[in-house]
Amino acid sequence: MEKHQKRYFLTEEEIPTQWYNIQADMVNKPLPPINPATKQPLKVEDLYPVFAEELCRQELDQEHAWIDIPEEVRDMYKYYRSTPLVRAYGLEKALGTPAHIYFKNESVSPVGSHKLNSALAQAYYCKQQGITNVTTETGAGQWGAALSYAAKAFGLEAAVYQVKISYNQKPYRRSIMQTYGAQVTASPSMSTRAGKDILTRDPNNQGSLGTAISEAIELALNTPNCRYTLGSVLSHVTLHQTIIGLEAEKQMQKAGEYPDIVIGCFGGGSNFGGISFPFMRHNIKEGRTTRFIAAEPASCPKLTRGVFQYDFGDVAGYTPLLPMYTLGHNFMPANIHAGGLRYHGAGVIVSQLLKDGMMEAVDIRQLESFEAGMLFSRAEGIIPAPESCHAIAAAIQEAKKCIATGEEKVILFNLSGHGLIDMAAYDQYLSGSLQDYVVTDEDVQRNISQLEKVL
Amino acid sequence: MEKHQKRYFLTEEEIPTQWYNIQADMVNKPLPPINPATKQPLKVEDLYPVFAEELCRQELDQEHAWIDIPEEVRDMYKYYRSTPLVRAYGLEKALGTPAHIYFKNESVSPVGSHKLNSALAQAYYCKQQGITNVTTETGAGQWGAALSYAAKAFGLEAAVYQVKISYNQKPYRRSIMQTYGAQVTASPSMSTRAGKDILTRDPNNQGSLGTAISEAIELALNTPNCRYTLGSVLSHVTLHQTIIGLEAEKQMQKAGEYPDIVIGCFGGGSNFGGISFPFMRHNIKEGRTTRFIAAEPASCPKLTRGVFQYDFGDVAGYTPLLPMYTLGHNFMPANIHAGGLRYHGAGVIVSQLLKDGMMEAVDIRQLESFEAGMLFSRAEGIIPAPESCHAIAAAIQEAKKCIATGEEKVILFNLSGHGLIDMAAYDQYLSGSLQDYVVTDEDVQRNISQLEKVL
Repeated sequence: MEKHQKRYFLTEEEIPTQWYNIQADMVNKPLPPINPATKQPLKVEDLYPVFAEELCRQELDQEHAWIDIPEEVRDMYKYYRSTPLVRAYGLEKALGTPAHIYFKNESVSPVGSHKLNSALAQAYYCKQQGITNVTTETGAGQWGAALSYAAKAFGLEAAVYQVKISYNQKPYRRSIMQTYGAQVTASPSMSTRAGKDILTRDPNNQGSLGTAISEAIELALNTPNCRYTLGSVLSHVTLHQTIIGLEAEKQMQKAGEYPDIVIGCFGGGSNFGGISFPFMRHNIKEGRTTRFIAAEPASCPKLTRGVFQYDFGDVAGYTPLLPMYTLGHNFMPANIHAGGLRYHGAGVIVSQLLKDGMMEAVDIRQLESFEAGMLFSRAEGIIPAPESCHAIAAAIQEAKKCIATGEEKVILFNLSGHGLIDMAAYDQYLSGSLQDYVVTDEDVQRNISQLEKVL
Repeated sequence: MEKHQKRYFLTEEEIPTQWYNIQADMVNKPLPPINPATKQPLKVEDLYPVFAEELCRQELDQEHAWIDIPEEVRDMYKYYRSTPLVRAYGLEKALGTPAHIYFKNESVSPVGSHKLNSALAQAYYCKQQGITNVTTETGAGQWGAALSYAAKAFGLEAAVYQVKISYNQKPYRRSIMQTYGAQVTASPSMSTRAGKDILTRDPNNQGSLGTAISEAIELALNTPNCRYTLGSVLSHVTLHQTIIGLEAEKQMQKAGEYPDIVIGCFGGGSNFGGISFPFMRHNIKEGRTTRFIAAEPASCPKLTRGVFQYDFGDVAGYTPLLPMYTLGHNFMPANIHAGGLRYHGAGVIVSQLLKDGMMEAVDIRQLESFEAGMLFSRAEGIIPAPESCHAIAAAIQEAKKCIATGEEKVILFNLSGHGLIDMAAYDQYLSGSLQDYVVTDEDVQRNISQLEKVL
């Protein structure tokens, strides 16, 4: 029998002790976020009412390339890290490709995805500052589950606004959050001004990440000793996720290889940046030529078809204005199963890197993503999250090119999470009822043209 | 912050190369299975039409204490093993116990439970013998998912009969099996004589493991080049699961401790035997006094309230007669969420060991099991399978005794699987609608009295 897989691990001592802040090494730094009230660049203190202070400092830090991981966070990381780096012999064989395919398996975390890497850090900094309550939003529920567990681990109360359509369609993830002790509310709700405004206009509104963010920020601002937390998009979240790429770099050394191509699925950018940035620093500093590919859904194509412009991160306009690739903060993505990729904008670091040609983006249709997920499941035994299926599809595209050229390229992708809570999606695929959604040019233009008025 | 967890691993080289066959060391060997047609002790060849030949030999082997794990199976084990041995500091703190609590985390396998340990072995031996198709039964679907993946990994076709009530109530596990490429049929079905007989008598019959076993055996017997596989009860299945306890023994050495108490939940006995037997050999051979506790549901109490007697393993009477603790093969367990524990009998090895006082059993009510699962989820971050909740509840009972006595006992239990596909059960618990089911003495007596007529 041929080899199915080979896994590479780190010892506890080899687990990285610092996160990597690519902002310090970028040739063109991200443009500053703008305070919408003053139209001035945002100061660290402007963020203090919303986030724990250390997270605000990390968000705007363009000086320090390396940030120490607090001992308490590293202790918690050790409970599920290092995550395996896997040589995917089974997938290579199924494709008949000469490419060497590796994936970093973040699905082994207790909550089933990479989201815990930042949830633990954010909960820790809140706790350290004497905060007692945290709020957040969640779509399909991966981030909400991670924050709920992290809050419990550090003794904080958690309130989660879950996008209503997911709250009703995916009761399992809601139950997971509740099992960890969080209070979960369907968004839009009547508990915030932002939610009430939307429900008054549109009583049947099924919610969006942008709306849930508005509600969670509003609750944090109106609750004593409470702060908001976010699962992606922001630079400090991506910073925490660099543990993925830093581990992968050491593990690739153990495998005796270095990636020619690094791939991550793309919602707000934290899992893509997490696996990519540690490798990208060698492109920046040593002239390596590794390619970095963000795989986004064809139904929410901000990187491939959006504009680079200042925009709000949420629907109600509570966030600072961020310089990002965006489809407009009012863009309503189709209801694809990859709920974590249904976000209108990209983080400021990735946006600058894409503008500067340091990385690429590809859009993947829903059917192609699940076709890739099915192939991967049968070849590797792990059923991937619908989000991760996008990264797998992009990896398969590159591996197929190698069949044509005969090149033994080394492809690394991030398996951001498992799909065990998303089996209804696989069921639709298996029964032939799953659909593709592609945004029309008119939709893109209408939303982007509205955007002009923001600044 | 106090420690939450500490994990112990083995290197690839330290992963055991042999399974442990306790039959060779038992003072009183299990009584022989009886061929119901001849009323004579079963010969190895009698089993050949049903199971792969090597599995038949393993089933009745009372001579060899150590069986080599085939290299191909060990290669697949390396993809998810060693599984972590975890010191559960979080749970100890939540209980305030001086006990040292460890758990072996089998939930990290790609299919989410320990079942894969035997599925890979069974699929391998079938493949090696030139078999092309395998059949099996499954309740909640843990075993069916494992066999589906193992069959795919070794290039076999798999047909799974799933108990109808689970097929309809737990569509996620069915989708998992289908994603791995298996054909899944709700049992009782019209595709077998056994199924037809039941449906003719009772068109609304919701199925049972005993019925699904009958259907899967019948399909195997009537299909060329096909064999049946079983997920628990049988001695060769438990043999494969001893990888759990053999790893745990080495990992406990790394932790510098040895268990005073070993606990597993109990359906047919494979996960309990898997973690217990390697430690039990030191009781047998070196006079150690470790206690072994099987945690069964109060709704299916064959160990605590059944009789030791020859009985069939299935409803239709296709299996040999087995000397087992049983509630009678017609016993219909209540519809508890721990579907994997809803079986009327216990494997022949465990039955003999219980009779000989080498181990104990405790029955756990459904509500207590989920209370334990909730506490564990919040303390350790992993949501346990409803089956595993029974082991946790028994471990908590023992840990609480240590609070009273002040003893620092070392308690080890097997976390056989995660509960991510069982969140509907947690939702019921959280909403207060979960029920206890306890069998009446009348029910037990009625089934056992019918049993007298078997031989």
